[in-house]
Amino acid sequence: MADIDRLSLYIQETLKVPYVQVAKNLFNILPKLLRDHNYHIRCLLFSKEDLWIVLAVFPPTGPAHLFGAAIDLGSTQMALSLVDLITGEILQTKHMDNSQIPFGADVLTRIHHAQTLEGQAELKALVLKQLQTEMQTLCDSLEKNINDIYLVTMAGNTIMTHLFLGLETRWLIREPYIPVVNRLGTFSASDVGFSLHPNAQIFIFPNIGSYFGGDVISGILAVGMACQKDISVLIDIGTNAEVVLGNQDWLVACAGAAGPAMENGVSEIGMRAMVGAIDYVKIHPQTLSFEYTTIGDVPPLGICGSGIIDLAAQLFINGLIDIRGKLVASKCPSCIQEKNGLLTLELVPANKSGTGQPIELTQVDLDSLIRSKAAMYTILETITHSVEMSPEQICRFYIAGTFGAYIRPDSAISLGMLPDLPRDIFKVVGNTSLAGAVRLLIDRDAMAEIVKIQQKITYIELNVNQDFMNRFSAAKFLPHTDTSRFPSVHWTS
Amino acid sequence: MADIDRLSLYIQETLKVPYVQVAKNLFNILPKLLRDHNYHIRCLLFSKEDLWIVLAVFPPTGPAHLFGAAIDLGSTQMALSLVDLITGEILQTKHMDNSQIPFGADVLTRIHHAQTLEGQAELKALVLKQLQTEMQTLCDSLEKNINDIYLVTMAGNTIMTHLFLGLETRWLIREPYIPVVNRLGTFSASDVGFSLHPNAQIFIFPNIGSYFGGDVISGILAVGMACQKDISVLIDIGTNAEVVLGNQDWLVACAGAAGPAMENGVSEIGMRAMVGAIDYVKIHPQTLSFEYTTIGDVPPLGICGSGIIDLAAQLFINGLIDIRGKLVASKCPSCIQEKNGLLTLELVPANKSGTGQPIELTQVDLDSLIRSKAAMYTILETITHSVEMSPEQICRFYIAGTFGAYIRPDSAISLGMLPDLPRDIFKVVGNTSLAGAVRLLIDRDAMAEIVKIQQKITYIELNVNQDFMNRFSAAKFLPHTDTSRFPSVHWTS
Repeated sequence: MADIDRLSLYIQETLKVPYVQVAKNLFNILPKLLRDHNYHIRCLLFSKEDLWIVLAVFPPTGPAHLFGAAIDLGSTQMALSLVDLITGEILQTKHMDNSQIPFGADVLTRIHHAQTLEGQAELKALVLKQLQTEMQTLCDSLEKNINDIYLVTMAGNTIMTHLFLGLETRWLIREPYIPVVNRLGTFSASDVGFSLHPNAQIFIFPNIGSYFGGDVISGILAVGMACQKDISVLIDIGTNAEVVLGNQDWLVACAGAAGPAMENGVSEIGMRAMVGAIDYVKIHPQTLSFEYTTIGDVPPLGICGSGIIDLAAQLFINGLIDIRGKLVASKCPSCIQEKNGLLTLELVPANKSGTGQPIELTQVDLDSLIRSKAAMYTILETITHSVEMSPEQICRFYIAGTFGAYIRPDSAISLGMLPDLPRDIFKVVGNTSLAGAVRLLIDRDAMAEIVKIQQKITYIELNVNQDFMNRFSAAKFLPHTDTSRFPSVHWTS
Repeated sequence: MADIDRLSLYIQETLKVPYVQVAKNLFNILPKLLRDHNYHIRCLLFSKEDLWIVLAVFPPTGPAHLFGAAIDLGSTQMALSLVDLITGEILQTKHMDNSQIPFGADVLTRIHHAQTLEGQAELKALVLKQLQTEMQTLCDSLEKNINDIYLVTMAGNTIMTHLFLGLETRWLIREPYIPVVNRLGTFSASDVGFSLHPNAQIFIFPNIGSYFGGDVISGILAVGMACQKDISVLIDIGTNAEVVLGNQDWLVACAGAAGPAMENGVSEIGMRAMVGAIDYVKIHPQTLSFEYTTIGDVPPLGICGSGIIDLAAQLFINGLIDIRGKLVASKCPSCIQEKNGLLTLELVPANKSGTGQPIELTQVDLDSLIRSKAAMYTILETITHSVEMSPEQICRFYIAGTFGAYIRPDSAISLGMLPDLPRDIFKVVGNTSLAGAVRLLIDRDAMAEIVKIQQKITYIELNVNQDFMNRFSAAKFLPHTDTSRFPSVHWTS
């Protein structure tokens, strides 16, 4: 019996698997290794459906290092974790702006750029090079060898994964919005364009449709809701809000535009949750003075998602905006004034700001926020309604996404953005897209769970019909036209 | 549902196969093709165990051309057939000398050259380039496009396939003679180094061991003996003689050195079956004059396999050599004379030869031929003995190989090289290694048959023990020490 056949057969019989394949570039390594170690070696196996591939062979003491990289392929920000596959430890995580942003902050502009073959290739090359460089830098800084990366897991939305693979995006944005491929599966990392271990594999999380991508599948995996008996909700807030509802038996999902307020906060003063961002706001009920904290405890440069929600909630509770979200100048003539024909709230005066300019919130910003919160609530209402559930039946409420990373559920509830449920069921879970990708690297059962999620999930097209519009109109009030839905919210009018 | 997923699912459900994979480079071709043809397209599928791969997609009218190439990777001569995969027709067959020959006419010298990585790479590149060029030339001459070749089937012995793939050959020639790999399976043709259709596949016939290669598996497939109820023998004569015995239920095989006489004929005057070769010899019983024919009907340049066997048989029958194979000068003093201390037979005088030199056969040549015929017979005797059969139970006797291409069984039997069986059971079948590779290109059931052959075949190590040596000694007489085994052979002594 030949060396390769002997190894394959042994694995086949020991693991009781139908097909074993030894990577071709091991053919010339194996014979000597076997003889040097008296036919005792260690193998790194990778399964692709029924087929088990021997990716690498080692002396019986095994490899010193096996690393994996988990990637969240966000359209604005990307994240990368280097993971020790032997210990399961996350060695380091890095966040970076997507290098495609110069070709469009929003993905539609990037898709436009990708209409030509050159543009498509350019966008693909950009992000590929960036990720390769970041992996290299991460390995260098940790004194690890990039050739010891054997596995990459990647989660991103449908558009981002299409751009990453150089796939045509033209059909994604045209009715009936058909992706080229949803079940992306496993590729050879070198085929995709990465230089890692020569036999490294890359798994890209499957998409469910054009507007529901692998990043959310990864999120469902991360929070584990598809394995729980209790019913959970997962919301991932960005430009789009993705909402998933369900448990181990069923999952429904939908996605809808949450409005720009939810991405980088409100137009003028909004910024991502980074140093200098106001992340917490409190208004003193008697003095109506503003208290706030900033990330890094430096003079404020702007306000991030959690800050803007706190601010709006506090304004409402203290009667500085009315139930329509309109600034009430009479309540605080010193802080609310008309500027350029617009009512404007001064949150931080110029002399206390890090920019030298006052940090202000206009009525336009507020209107935009109200539309976003109404959209979020309506999407939640629609999806629970679709399965004839009331919000009270929700046992866990996961809030994911960069925007939701520091969110205080209490503030979001005060605005009527989230339903008025016991505060302890809310879990702020951060970047679940990355967390799911990390879990897949270290948990052998995760792949079966992904397949289960893929099979169980029902995507609901958010039909913007009269019903939806009626619900949306009712949700545009603070906290809601039907105030009985928010018994725990009290405000001054 | 995404385009690729929809196609995969359709194929999965229609063909009832577990896994379908669309070649990655079709991802950007499929969406437009589907829309251009109202979602009616044609696919070229290729199965690898349970996995069906979509190699190419076409408009609903289908591809104009689908070609396959069958290759016999002989160590001396290689053969290549271009096959129309739609009609099953062989478009053309080409024979060529193996370009590795300058690095050793025999494979051991080539293995020696391949001991260094450079040598190994050099030998691989040589034959790869040669085959690529030959395929290109063949396509050009037929005005076909090489990119329309989607499948290559290749059969060769174990050493040749190792050299072709650039695999280490050092263990093949050292006890216990372990190949790197026997079950070679399917590779991407581009991975191997061929430039054909980008998704073209290459299947290399499996080996059974270091001395029993895929060329014989291909031969078994070509003659169909593994599907027949009757018991057959297949012999493939070259430097090694491979012998297979069996039927649909069982197969035993062995290989043994047949001696140099069987490769290029006898040393001095031997040549391959090509223009100028004497391929038929008859001695007039009364006049003892020689009649012969040459391939191409030109003045003789040498003598090929069938010619040398005819010649020896005729010499024996007419008493010009005795039962030990020794020339009897007294029987024909004009044609048998001592030259340089060796008895020498002049077959063609200088003035009738194409070389200007007489074509002569020496006692040394004859001795070599006798050893070869004895080896052949002994191998046959040993293998039938191993399954406790008598030669009479053999229903079909296939003679394969370049050497056997023009052989007359009657002559071989007269020498005692083949057993004395009814002449009509002998089938001279030519290059079965190539024929099996062609069959695999056009017959969907052939792959299952190969797997069956692989599983059923038992390789018998030819133990050169006292028994074997006794049989060999007995077989060194013409036709045999035990003349009762050859009742149909009559000779003058």
